This record gives sequence, structure tokens and C-alpha cells, in this order.
Amino acid sequence: MWTKLDRIQRDIEELAKFNSTPGRGLTRFSLTAEDRAARNYLKKELLGCGLKVFEDAAGNLTARREGLLQDAPVVMIGSHFDSVKSGGNFDGPAGVAAALETVRVLSERGIDTLYPIEVVAMIEEEGARFGASLYGSRAMAGKISVAQLKDRKDSEGISMFDALKNFGFRPEDIAAAQRLPGSIKAFLELHIEQGPLLESEGLDIGIVGDIVGIQDLIIKLIGRQGHAGTIPMHLRADALNAAARVIAKISDLAVAAGEGTVATVGWLSVKPGGFNIIPGEAEFSVDIRSGKQAHVDTVTQGIADFLQEMTQGTGVQFEMTSLMKVEPVRMSAGIVAIETACCEKMGLKSRIMSSGAGHDAMVMADLTDVGLLFVPSLAGRSHCPEEWTDYGQLQKGVEVYLHTVMELAEAQL
Amino acid sequence: MWTKLDRIQRDIEELAKFNSTPGRGLTRFSLTAEDRAARNYLKKELLGCGLKVFEDAAGNLTARREGLLQDAPVVMIGSHFDSVKSGGNFDGPAGVAAALETVRVLSERGIDTLYPIEVVAMIEEEGARFGASLYGSRAMAGKISVAQLKDRKDSEGISMFDALKNFGFRPEDIAAAQRLPGSIKAFLELHIEQGPLLESEGLDIGIVGDIVGIQDLIIKLIGRQGHAGTIPMHLRADALNAAARVIAKISDLAVAAGEGTVATVGWLSVKPGGFNIIPGEAEFSVDIRSGKQAHVDTVTQGIADFLQEMTQGTGVQFEMTSLMKVEPVRMSAGIVAIETACCEKMGLKSRIMSSGAGHDAMVMADLTDVGLLFVPSLAGRSHCPEEWTDYGQLQKGVEVYLHTVMELAEAQL
Repeated sequence: MWTKLDRIQRDIEELAKFNSTPGRGLTRFSLTAEDRAARNYLKKELLGCGLKVFEDAAGNLTARREGLLQDAPVVMIGSHFDSVKSGGNFDGPAGVAAALETVRVLSERGIDTLYPIEVVAMIEEEGARFGASLYGSRAMAGKISVAQLKDRKDSEGISMFDALKNFGFRPEDIAAAQRLPGSIKAFLELHIEQGPLLESEGLDIGIVGDIVGIQDLIIKLIGRQGHAGTIPMHLRADALNAAARVIAKISDLAVAAGEGTVATVGWLSVKPGGFNIIPGEAEFSVDIRSGKQAHVDTVTQGIADFLQEMTQGTGVQFEMTSLMKVEPVRMSAGIVAIETACCEKMGLKSRIMSSGAGHDAMVMADLTDVGLLFVPSLAGRSHCPEEWTDYGQLQKGVEVYLHTVMELAEAQL
Repeated sequence: MWTKLDRIQRDIEELAKFNSTPGRGLTRFSLTAEDRAARNYLKKELLGCGLKVFEDAAGNLTARREGLLQDAPVVMIGSHFDSVKSGGNFDGPAGVAAALETVRVLSERGIDTLYPIEVVAMIEEEGARFGASLYGSRAMAGKISVAQLKDRKDSEGISMFDALKNFGFRPEDIAAAQRLPGSIKAFLELHIEQGPLLESEGLDIGIVGDIVGIQDLIIKLIGRQGHAGTIPMHLRADALNAAARVIAKISDLAVAAGEGTVATVGWLSVKPGGFNIIPGEAEFSVDIRSGKQAHVDTVTQGIADFLQEMTQGTGVQFEMTSLMKVEPVRMSAGIVAIETACCEKMGLKSRIMSSGAGHDAMVMADLTDVGLLFVPSLAGRSHCPEEWTDYGQLQKGVEVYLHTVMELAEAQL
């Protein structure tokens, strides 16, 4: 392999030092001292590869490696380097390390590419400080306004606008962070899977074919509150009992839809919530995800039908409200083909899969062709201190990533 | 009928005036100005029937009508006259009015009884002020100590001991409120059903055969928390999904046990409770009630078996904890027979049923033979301003009550 495991490991371990909660997982919020220190580490490494380093008005760190073509669109590579609170060392940094190792290899081997390459390390992808998730890529897509920056505040009431300003950026020029369609040839991201699929199937690489569509619902069941002792079973309209039957059905519907379709009830509230009171109201969330919109729609319709059927003649009424609907985003078929060929050539076990979580690549798909590679997560765990990816596995992913970038940027070997 | 509807209605309506939340249901907490006013009304009415009125050390109001036998045990009749917050006019007062009308009829008809009769109007049955539910009857059963009176405090921090003292009672002599076994021949209570069974079956009278046994459980399901998008359905250990299947099963088990067995999940908590997080933990309450202990045990065991079976090999673990267990209390078969005969003679439609809620009669069963009569509740509603019983229906209940008391006290006609 052209990539070096020790360098990748060092990048991950060094970045993990810039952490406001040592011993309790990794916490690196945007525009903090830890952000600054991580940024300085990355700048030094990128400068060491001979790249020109700059930062955009949004606060993203970027570094450019010129290609042989003049004024050609850029192959953009990277991920984010912020984290959730008490998260792990890999979510984001794995993709930044992949991009960094890629330009290192190209530089040490003196490989020229026709198209320029830009490494990007984005901030606030998690939204953990300002609640502005996918912020860095959304700024590149021209979807962040000055008003939004002033509106978004952290837990101490500091606006994102002020935080950017105090950090040395020019938030008033946020529009300048926008990249124009046509200026980017492709965007390639490597990320940890954050799920157990690759590990459970003994695979090395997940080639993302699509980022799932999401339908978020709120379902409210309204029954008749009553005394737990005095109302016979056949005269009840128990809202929680009805909710329980719907919740069991929802997972059955997702399994029936198949092809990786998932549905989750993560939140539930019961009123009045007394030990000896038949619930008069139960409200819960539903999150349905699938790479195919048809499956999302089938599950949604199946829930609506079941609600209708199950509540008929029971005295329980229901309300079903759509909170959010996002269509699936497809990765570029051309990039998927390159990634697949790389894996085959290297003898790596891979599969095409859906990404169940959103990533910067999803937003970048508005601007250009995108590709997204997954490496296995130990026990599928993420957003917690136990988040882990074996360094050997990570290196395999970075190697596929490197060769995909070389293909996209048309490396001259 | 010997009883008079207008007098019963007047009792209910007059007592309803002693209310601290007019326009928002009836609120009459123990040892308040409203309690004093209701007590004064009852004293006047009881004195008007020629009874000797006294109050015990616990604060219960009682009135004695002598019998022809010397030193004979007393037939005790009555119910409570306190209320929940913003409750209705009938829960408690209906039974006090029944006892009052009974001695009125005996007095106006000059009917002597062999056994003395004691009317009792109890306080703090609901426990709404001091959280000491069934207090009046528990004091008679010798189950209230001075220490408990000092310990129980209302929402303003006033102890029940001080409240009794300030009201003019002698809480230091609480032990004197105890009645000795053998001193009471029988206790008879009339109460509103607080459930919809009688109304739904078109019945006039519920003859309570037993007060249900209660098993309260807490069930905790522990799964694996995870991202709602990244974990395929077949690799999940979703605690709420498992809970939903148990909750649906619980009601099925209660229905299968039959004979009025009920089971209620009234409270449920999900952790962490995020829209896009597979729940790692779900905890809920179970309240099982039946007149037959065997049914309570069958449902409890059925839940345990289902938990075992359903969680096997899923990665979900469970804990099931018993919080409270109360055995069913049987009403006297002799009194049930008298009540049944009365209903038949009067051509009233009745049934023997379980009481799903606790009543003073349950506590008095420790001391003597008890009987409990139910009259229908409109739509089964109680503990709310809408609580209602048709006065004509109430009168039918009082008429059965009167004749049952006459039988028990051996009226000399």
C-alpha cells in the first residue's frame, strides 16, 4: 500500500489531543481553543506537503494542490474536524486524515494530477456548539446567511457570527464562502460507518450508494383517561396501549420493506402518566429512513393504514403529522464504479450500502458529483467515547480513497 | 319507596356548597373551613333525627342511634365527606347522604332496631390534603400512630397532628379512635361506582363481592442505544420496541384472565428519548387488579414468561420489580345475600361485581363483616367536575341500603 499506517494513526492521535473533556471522550466544539489547536496541526501538515493553505469566510480550513490544467475544476477531498460532546476520535477526523494522507502520498511520490486537489477540513458538521449541523458544507453551497449566523447561539448565548468574528474570520462576508457549480469536479469523503453492518458482515469497505431519505413523523393517540381499577378492559380507550401496538407494527413494516429500510420510535410521552390512571394521550416520534424513497413512502402509508384500522371503533383517535421529509441523495454512479474497481483490484471485501446518517457529502451533492466511503466501526458505536475503528481497517479505506482521488484528479503516472 | 329523593338531592347539593373551588369542581380537603361547614350541616341533620353526635380523636364525625339491646355491637353506616382537588359532588357524600337518609326514615317511621346504628362521616379518605388515604377507617382499625400524624404534612408543611389540634381534636389520643373487634356488628357503605360497568350494562345497583387485589410492578427493558439511521433492523436491541410488545401483551393477558381482571400501563419513560436515537432503556409501570388473587398471579406470571421468551437472543435484558401487592378483600357473603334479596324484592337490576378502587369498607373488613353497594356513575367518570349520578339512581341505591341496614340491625316492624 502507498499509504502509511503510522502516519494515519499519528494524525488521529494528535487531533484527539485537542479535546476539552480528556478522559471523558473527545469534545472539540467549533471556534474554540481546541478547534484552533487542531487547525494549527492540520495547517502545519498541509504546508509540509507543499500545499497553499487558506480559510474561507465560513471558517472552513482548505489547502490547495495545483493540477497541470489551468482554471480546471477542483477535486475536493476531506471531512469535518469538530465533534459532538464526549464523542470519539474518528467521526470526522478519519476523513480529514484520509485527505491529508492522500496529498502526503502524492507529494512524496511526486505525482502530478491534471485537476487541482483541495483538502477541506470543515467545522460545525455536528452542530454540537451552535446547532447548525452540516454548516461548513452548507456555507459552500451558499445556504448560510448573515442573519442565520446572528441567530444561531451557543449554550452561553454567543452568536455564531460573534464567535467567527472573535476567531478572526469575516462572517459578514459569509456569501464569499459559496462555491459555484462547475468549480468543483467532484467531492470525495471518507467516514466511519457509525453502524455495525460492515463489522457484522466481515467487510473492509462500505461504498455508499445513497444517503437515505428521512421521514420524521409525530403520532398522537387520544383515548379516554380513566381509573386503572374501575374501568373494565372492554370499555377502555387506552392511548398507550394503542401506541404500543403501533410501535410494534412500525418495526415490522420497516423489516417488510427491506433493502436496509429502518424505522425508529425514539421518543414517547404519556399523559397524565400516573401509575393508576389509564393514559388519555400518548405521543411519539417516528423516524423512517431508506435509500429508496418508495420504501419510505410504503412504511409511512403502512403506518397510516394501521392507525386507521386499529383505532376503528375503539374510541381512540389519532393524529399523524409530518415533521421533516428529506429525499434520498444518490452518490455519483461513476465514483461508485471507481471505488468498486479499486476495492476489487486491492482484494478488499466491500459492499454498496446506504448511509443512514447525513454527511457533508449529502450537501455537496447539490454542487457536484460526490462519493462517500465507509470504514467499519467497532460494534457500530459512535458519538461516544468507545467509538473505534481499527487502524489497519482505516488504512485500507484511505488506500481506496487515495486511488479514487488519483483517478478523479487524473494522476499522471 | 321509603326514602325521599328530594331529601337525598338536598343533602348532596348542600354538601357541595362547602367547596374551596366553586366553578371548578368540588374541593373539600380535611380539617379546613369547608370541612367544618360540611360537618356542621351533618351534625344539624343528625341531631334532627334524634341521634347523639360525637367526634372521635381521629376527627371522624359519628352519630349514634341506640338499639333495643344493651351493650350490643353497632351496625356502622356511612362513607367519607372529603374530596380530591376539583372532584365531583358524589364521591363520598353519596354514601354519607345514604346513611343520613337511612336514620331519617327510621326516625320518621318510629322504627326501632335491636342493634344500635352509628352513622359515620370519615375524613381524609382521599388523602388529598395529607396523602393519608383511607385515614378515617385506618384510625378506627388502630393503624394510625401519633408519629404518623406528625410526619404527614400538607403542601404548606402543616402536619396532620397540628391541623387536628388546631381544629379542636386530640391527636395525642389517636389510639382512642380505635374500635375493638366485636364492637361492630357490620359496616355498610354506599359509593358511586366511579366506573362505566353498571351504566354500560343498564343496571341499577352494583353489589360488591370483593375489593380487588392489586399488584404494582415496574418493568425495565435495557437494550442498546444507537443511531436511528446507521443500525439495520436486524442488529438492533431497541428497548422501546420491546416494551411496546410487552405492553400490548399485558392487556391481552388481562382480557384472557377475565372475570373483571384489569391491567394498566399508566407511566412510561424512554431513555435517552431522542428522535433519531434507538432507545437504550424503557421503563414502565404495570397495575394489575382482580377480585381473585389467582388472576392477579396468572397475569403477573404471564408477563414474566413473555419477557423471558420475547427477549431471548435479542440483546434486550429486563428487570421486573414488585412495588406493591395487596390481596383482594371479600365482602361478607351474608351481607351480599341480603343486598341481593333486597334488589330482587324491589325489582332492581343488579349484579355482583368487584370494586376496582379501594374504599373505607376495605379497611373496615379488618374489624367486621362489610358490605359495599355501588350506584351508577354517568359515563363512569369520577374525580373530576363532570362526576355525576342520576338522583333517581342514587335513591334506588339508598333504598336498598336502608333495607339492608334494617335487616342487619334487626328492625322491629
